[in-house]
Amino acid sequence: MTVPPATGAVRHDVESEIHRELTAFFDLHAARAAAYGPHFARLWAVAAECAVGGKLLRPRLLVGAYDALAPSPADDGEVVDRVQVVRIAAAIEILHYAFLLHDDVIDGDVTRRHRPNLVGRVLDEAARAARAAGTSEPAADPLHFARSAAILMGDLLLTAVHHAFARMDVPHATRIRLLDLLDRTIAETVAGELADVGLADGIISPDLHAVLAMDRSKTAAYTFALPLVAAAVLAGHPHLADTLTEVGGRMGLAFQLQDDLLSTFADTAEHGKDRFSDLREGKETALIAFARMTSAWPQISGTFGAADFTDADGLAARAALAACGAEDFVRSLIDEQLRECDTLLTGSGGAPAPLVSYLTALSASLEGRRR
Amino acid sequence: MTVPPATGAVRHDVESEIHRELTAFFDLHAARAAAYGPHFARLWAVAAECAVGGKLLRPRLLVGAYDALAPSPADDGEVVDRVQVVRIAAAIEILHYAFLLHDDVIDGDVTRRHRPNLVGRVLDEAARAARAAGTSEPAADPLHFARSAAILMGDLLLTAVHHAFARMDVPHATRIRLLDLLDRTIAETVAGELADVGLADGIISPDLHAVLAMDRSKTAAYTFALPLVAAAVLAGHPHLADTLTEVGGRMGLAFQLQDDLLSTFADTAEHGKDRFSDLREGKETALIAFARMTSAWPQISGTFGAADFTDADGLAARAALAACGAEDFVRSLIDEQLRECDTLLTGSGGAPAPLVSYLTALSASLEGRRR
Repeated sequence: MTVPPATGAVRHDVESEIHRELTAFFDLHAARAAAYGPHFARLWAVAAECAVGGKLLRPRLLVGAYDALAPSPADDGEVVDRVQVVRIAAAIEILHYAFLLHDDVIDGDVTRRHRPNLVGRVLDEAARAARAAGTSEPAADPLHFARSAAILMGDLLLTAVHHAFARMDVPHATRIRLLDLLDRTIAETVAGELADVGLADGIISPDLHAVLAMDRSKTAAYTFALPLVAAAVLAGHPHLADTLTEVGGRMGLAFQLQDDLLSTFADTAEHGKDRFSDLREGKETALIAFARMTSAWPQISGTFGAADFTDADGLAARAALAACGAEDFVRSLIDEQLRECDTLLTGSGGAPAPLVSYLTALSASLEGRRR
Repeated sequence: MTVPPATGAVRHDVESEIHRELTAFFDLHAARAAAYGPHFARLWAVAAECAVGGKLLRPRLLVGAYDALAPSPADDGEVVDRVQVVRIAAAIEILHYAFLLHDDVIDGDVTRRHRPNLVGRVLDEAARAARAAGTSEPAADPLHFARSAAILMGDLLLTAVHHAFARMDVPHATRIRLLDLLDRTIAETVAGELADVGLADGIISPDLHAVLAMDRSKTAAYTFALPLVAAAVLAGHPHLADTLTEVGGRMGLAFQLQDDLLSTFADTAEHGKDRFSDLREGKETALIAFARMTSAWPQISGTFGAADFTDADGLAARAALAACGAEDFVRSLIDEQLRECDTLLTGSGGAPAPLVSYLTALSASLEGRRR
């Protein structure tokens, strides 16, 4: 997906601004961490290596939407300084990374997008250190150390996000609005993550309603609704919060459903993940939840999540998911979300024209991502 | 340990105040959680069952120290409302519980003090639910679900702690001081936890210096220094922060060293934990770090952390730890910490008399805990 540049009058190099802010954040924390010993300092350095260099989807969305809205005076009549906007955008990227860290621990992953994640990197270093120490008493357990380090670094990053919001140099009422938004977003995301784990672990029944609610809570709330609503509050348009919460929820759901389609129907080159990874891992997606309700399910269930899943199994499941109507259903669901976004944005109580253009371009890039 | 009551003029039932605040906190969150489905709401209810009913050491320390200090006008000339003080005290109890949750996940524990912890309770309920659903596809994994739920609930509680601090209705400068204090305390505690895991996993060499630094970072910072410094800031005595940080660090270290002695040298009835649990689990304590440097170590190392550790092994190790001087060393270290606290409190730049009395009583109760 391409996040469109701002449509406002002033052009900024948003990606560089956010990158600088993130780098400064990690430099500061790594320097402070040295006071607590080399292992703690090293953990911050590894976290920086993993966290910096992403696509910055969420912070670019925030700054893009902010720039598209002509900033108006905030609650106390003052315009929020743009430095604060970039800082909050960077904090949302850190929130994203904190969620990924705990997600990777929960999923037992040591890689992300074919590269070692924080767990994988700490594991390699800890295993080397244990060998160098040459002690077998107590038995060295570098994987346990690495996973524990990831839990703890997630806690530190979550702390840093709250600290950034709480210390914002903005009018009191604006800060309270943003703190409440952050609090609600984290609750919703965690509820979605819990549902995802419950579906994967067979605790929650994998029906379509549960899967769609999970997608919206887990991904849409913090990836789309949080940056858009934060942008509106920072730009002095807090009355747009309800509309943008709904628009963000629907865009985010469309984004996740696109991801599901890409994993099953597109080539690896188009999405950068392993081909058929969702089917191989037995992921409970909307595609699967729909297929479960059809007579095609026995053709899929035999290999779904199987340890020895092959590419031939993937091609057979893909054909069955197309034939049973699951693919068409998910495509129509995406169309519905994006259409509804248009209606919300342009209807009465809708958004100012520059923000509508910005979000329409974003919506079009979501559609373009379809194949 | 007995936390002495406040020595101030007004007597409050501090324990009831904190208990009411905690109960209200969990009631509010459980009610809000219902919007995200029954599993999420149930998780909040289970968290409340586990978290409410503790000894409230940390919040009672905060309110006790606050009441001992005659509250003075804070940064902007206003006295902080006592309701805010109780709220921050309750938030510190929630922080404690968030740390315990992630600690239990890291340690793989499903009980705490002979009762199921949150992981154990969710595990029981999830296993029942999986059986009731009667589905074996995908394979139900209630333990994974329970551990994931504990990671996620820890994130929610950490979020709630920051939210409580960030939304405090106190002068801006006071809030900033407290936010910085919280941020530093969490960094230090996490650094201590990382060191603890590194010691247990054979990544960090278990020398005495590393173990003492770990004890102070992991336990003393948030258990003693945080409540005492927060009390001083809230009572309008921010200039006491440095002294109380040092006093809290030393009292907390003494408290942890007492815990180590009790686990090895006292009867179960005196501390409520399994007899010899530290030795059975191979915990790297100051006692053990000292013994490692003596010729007695071979008498201890054979059974230290052994899967088949017996009570006879415990009695033999205890005798060796006494004979080699480890016990005396740790007792003298405790005395040194508490003596140094007295010096700091009563010296120039020390604390007001009522706070000194309060902390002297606390220190005496630490000594009384010795056997």
